[in-house]
Amino acid sequence: MILYYAPGACSQACHIALIEAGMSYRLVKVGRDKQTDDGRDFKTINPKGYTPALELDDGTILTENLVILAYIADKSGKLLARDGLDHWRALEATAFMTTEIHSNFRPFFFPDATQAEKEKAGMMLVMRFGTIAEQLGDKTFLIGAQMTIADAYLFVMLAWAAMMGIAVPERLGAYSARMKSVPSVAQALAEEGFARA
Amino acid sequence: MILYYAPGACSQACHIALIEAGMSYRLVKVGRDKQTDDGRDFKTINPKGYTPALELDDGTILTENLVILAYIADKSGKLLARDGLDHWRALEATAFMTTEIHSNFRPFFFPDATQAEKEKAGMMLVMRFGTIAEQLGDKTFLIGAQMTIADAYLFVMLAWAAMMGIAVPERLGAYSARMKSVPSVAQALAEEGFARA
Repeated sequence: MILYYAPGACSQACHIALIEAGMSYRLVKVGRDKQTDDGRDFKTINPKGYTPALELDDGTILTENLVILAYIADKSGKLLARDGLDHWRALEATAFMTTEIHSNFRPFFFPDATQAEKEKAGMMLVMRFGTIAEQLGDKTFLIGAQMTIADAYLFVMLAWAAMMGIAVPERLGAYSARMKSVPSVAQALAEEGFARA
Repeated sequence: MILYYAPGACSQACHIALIEAGMSYRLVKVGRDKQTDDGRDFKTINPKGYTPALELDDGTILTENLVILAYIADKSGKLLARDGLDHWRALEATAFMTTEIHSNFRPFFFPDATQAEKEKAGMMLVMRFGTIAEQLGDKTFLIGAQMTIADAYLFVMLAWAAMMGIAVPERLGAYSARMKSVPSVAQALAEEGFARA
């Protein structure tokens, strides 16, 4: 499989999941100019133009972060309970990352966003990270004792929060530090060119 | 099961799915003041404060539109292929509705959004609906011959586009008109108080 990614982008959640799931993959980097590091126009691969995209061994391209994460979990039997409430709670947390957290970071990445837009989005983010901190409680991972796809996504969202100066509850700061020591996370960071903090 | 909904909101996709799946349900309406029509504070049911929420028979509350839709499909065996590429394509289209279409409608619902924010979001919506129109092609439903959870969601997003004056390709207008004649859609509209157009 090939993961089309951008360093530090939300595709990092898929990258972590692939390693944690023990699946074999090859990385292809996509630049801001939408060119891949092997010299192709990324829009011919994913016409929507954004990462992540996962190319299966038969050439099928899957897109959308939540879907690629769920696919990796389904094929590996890891990172998401097959059924029961834990399955739905992990999917629910992952959906919350995409719709309520990731989406509110957009003004911070759009060069033409106004200060007012950033402030509004920042207030939403503080509220949404508060919900996640309550859900985490004193657990090791968001859903329980096992790492799930929701944790892979949350780790990246917390890195964005740190980068953009969004204050998150102390509990999430400690979680983020713990996650950096998870071998799959450390490997993904290294492979994307981030030196270990 | 109880579906907590707001008329015409994205919870309508779950409402349509429940009917199409042949599942028994009871509706509880949530007002703009976050009070339910049976006199409860909705935030005690879903602390995140937004619809949809699905109360299972054991009292468990599920949230996030994509997750409730996937749950309904899983329990009924309808509206989503159990596996194979159609499964992933329907989930992918549903995730796209949540992250790229629904989220860009936000400025149209926020009273303090500026005209510039609405224009920017409107341009994104035109582009995203264009992607959906291409995916639909000449098919009856978005993924193929069978209705999926992605269609339930798309129908609601197209109703929002019509309401907010977002121009969509002709093909999607025709699709929306066809969907209104699907019995489950017609029933959901009637139950939410919308007279048949």
